[in-house]
Amino acid sequence: MQYKDQSAWRDVLEFPIGGRQQKPRRTGKTMVIDKGLGLTEFKDLLEVAAPYIDFIKLGFGTSVFYPAEILREKIRLARSHAVDIFPGGTFFEVAVLQGRLSLYLQTARELGYTFIEISDGTIDLSRTLRYAALRQARAAGFGVITEVGKKDPRDALSDTHILSQIAMDLEAGADYVIVEGRESGQGVVIYDSRGVVKEDTLAYLIEGIGDLDRIIWEAPQKQQQQALIINLGANVNLGNVQPGDVLALEALRVGLRGDTLRTTLVREGVS
Amino acid sequence: MQYKDQSAWRDVLEFPIGGRQQKPRRTGKTMVIDKGLGLTEFKDLLEVAAPYIDFIKLGFGTSVFYPAEILREKIRLARSHAVDIFPGGTFFEVAVLQGRLSLYLQTARELGYTFIEISDGTIDLSRTLRYAALRQARAAGFGVITEVGKKDPRDALSDTHILSQIAMDLEAGADYVIVEGRESGQGVVIYDSRGVVKEDTLAYLIEGIGDLDRIIWEAPQKQQQQALIINLGANVNLGNVQPGDVLALEALRVGLRGDTLRTTLVREGVS
Amino acid sequence: MQYKDQSAWRDVLEFPIGGRQQKPRRTGKTMVIDKGLGLTEFKDLLEVAAPYIDFIKLGFGTSVFYPAEILREKIRLARSHAVDIFPGGTFFEVAVLQGRLSLYLQTARELGYTFIEISDGTIDLSRTLRYAALRQARAAGFGVITEVGKKDPRDALSDTHILSQIAMDLEAGADYVIVEGRESGQGVVIYDSRGVVKEDTLAYLIEGIGDLDRIIWEAPQKQQQQALIINLGANVNLGNVQPGDVLALEALRVGLRGDTLRTTLVREGVS
Repeated sequence: MQYKDQSAWRDVLEFPIGGRQQKPRRTGKTMVIDKGLGLTEFKDLLEVAAPYIDFIKLGFGTSVFYPAEILREKIRLARSHAVDIFPGGTFFEVAVLQGRLSLYLQTARELGYTFIEISDGTIDLSRTLRYAALRQARAAGFGVITEVGKKDPRDALSDTHILSQIAMDLEAGADYVIVEGRESGQGVVIYDSRGVVKEDTLAYLIEGIGDLDRIIWEAPQKQQQQALIINLGANVNLGNVQPGDVLALEALRVGLRGDTLRTTLVREGVS
Repeated sequence: MQYKDQSAWRDVLEFPIGGRQQKPRRTGKTMVIDKGLGLTEFKDLLEVAAPYIDFIKLGFGTSVFYPAEILREKIRLARSHAVDIFPGGTFFEVAVLQGRLSLYLQTARELGYTFIEISDGTIDLSRTLRYAALRQARAAGFGVITEVGKKDPRDALSDTHILSQIAMDLEAGADYVIVEGRESGQGVVIYDSRGVVKEDTLAYLIEGIGDLDRIIWEAPQKQQQQALIINLGANVNLGNVQPGDVLALEALRVGLRGDTLRTTLVREGVS
Repeated sequence: MQYKDQSAWRDVLEFPIGGRQQKPRRTGKTMVIDKGLGLTEFKDLLEVAAPYIDFIKLGFGTSVFYPAEILREKIRLARSHAVDIFPGGTFFEVAVLQGRLSLYLQTARELGYTFIEISDGTIDLSRTLRYAALRQARAAGFGVITEVGKKDPRDALSDTHILSQIAMDLEAGADYVIVEGRESGQGVVIYDSRGVVKEDTLAYLIEGIGDLDRIIWEAPQKQQQQALIINLGANVNLGNVQPGDVLALEALRVGLRGDTLRTTLVREGVS
């Protein structure tokens, strides 16, 4: 059953921006960052918003801090709502640093995570190790999301480098590639230090990326979500969305919020 | 029973700023913006803070995304705590755009919403249509809140225009008129692009508005709530308050928070 | 039992930053500011994060707004999770202003609060009264936290003044001294108007403070928590942490988040 069938408003209005895909969708994915929701909040979120959530990331290394039974229950709840769930990339990086990748994957598997994020936002990771990890995660039964971009502005990669890394990751079989945006959305890849989208960089990446449907743009701020929807449409993949922003983002996607509604009206010559 | 009777602290302190009205109050209303709270969070909020909440707005078009039974339950809960509830203005605007106003009002009525917001923050709406909608909403049994101000800075109205629109809306029988502040509180009507109150504009509006008790100022940021309380007193109507800020705002109103306490002490010559 | 024993990940990884103290800890305390959490959210938070929370402050004068039974239950829950709990300093200041300190302490005691904050962030408080209040709170059975720093930039104290006040407070028997950071973390003591740590001021205070283990730095923003952890280590005491940030902060403390992980790697010559 489509979520629209469950809405009391389903026969009242058309979405101003049409074509929004419903779950399970190949693109238009929303990835939520969970920085430590309690179990009730987590259930609450899924009950209201699961049709609009495709991935939940337990951010950074927060996975380690949960009592085991609560962690297992969160993972079980996500899966029961058809939401994929994975630990943050920094946690993976620490495992690699400490030579514990196999144990990391085995534990993640046993706990029920469905995806693994492979990143080098903080550590250095050779190309060989990156793709060995990708193959190992896939062999262990996980979906794989890689991430491109350095967290610290002092380590920033060139746009060319980012583009070629994305191409290689997709070629190597990553299901999705995340473009780093951090939890703040500031001073990284397509965002300037105030979080404003650098339209030139974005245009360059859009032009150069082969399969945009497999790119997830981390976009924690509303202005960023808006810019990406206006540039790439309702079914752009967006990540690092705050749990409390999921319905507001869905409204942005379909034109039920002022910012994207206005753009749609102007394009259609209505306003 | 007044909420003060329920406080364990009721005989210990006087509020530094006196005269705060209690529910049901004609003025001093707090309107909360709900961007997608789950049912448990919503109950939790009302249990603790209902005496300090007069209106809940289900922001933008988020109403459409709830499973019908959850939406009905939220509306029922709000009403059972003597809180009025209405869908966001953008939702109304889309209904008007699509020529579905009657169906919109009928569905809202059937679901139990108690107020309707009539806005043109994004669309163009002739004066004739605006007041026809107002009359139609009232005839359908709703309280009516109109909103004045454009969401996009490129469409900004002059202060004179805003003032005359407010006067006409009140004359036409709006219960309250909202001065647009957006969810961000930036770059709209009385706020500059950083969210700071433009004191000149505010003073001009205060001077020109006939019945300030019927104006709701959208003020999502603390600095904005503070400035409006200092200018207009504990019983100013404030909107777009985040759910988690309701008690903190109440503390601001009565001088139990540093910012408004200091102003009170300086005025009284205590400090 | 240590929290690490409860983690499903306990045998997988070492924390990149070692030496994090576990509860009950003398230093490395995390103080959370609660601006009005409902009862379910509060339980939820404690269930997941109590091992990482040492103090909960019911911010400003919000204590007064709770129905008595909810307030009692929050206090009981905090204590049952070995978390100390106290009302905000502004509430204390109003009690002093109104000559009700004894009744304030008696009510707080009866409700079950375990600590009292003694501050003069907004009011003027003579040295004599400050230490009389401290002794009176202690005699009533409370732990005592004093706070140093003025909330309003117009009242800012000199660094020398702050340092001498801290020394006197510790000498007078305060368990902890809070360095004011406000809820915003902007324009006060060690933060500039954008919330960036003033490294000179911080260095000056660190150099001059006798017992850093008894200082709690209010640090609501992530950049502030990061700067303080990098300067003072995993076991720095931090305050005004948002409830939703507790696990993310713990990740920062132990190097399971990019920002502090990178610093650790650079220091160790790994990166």
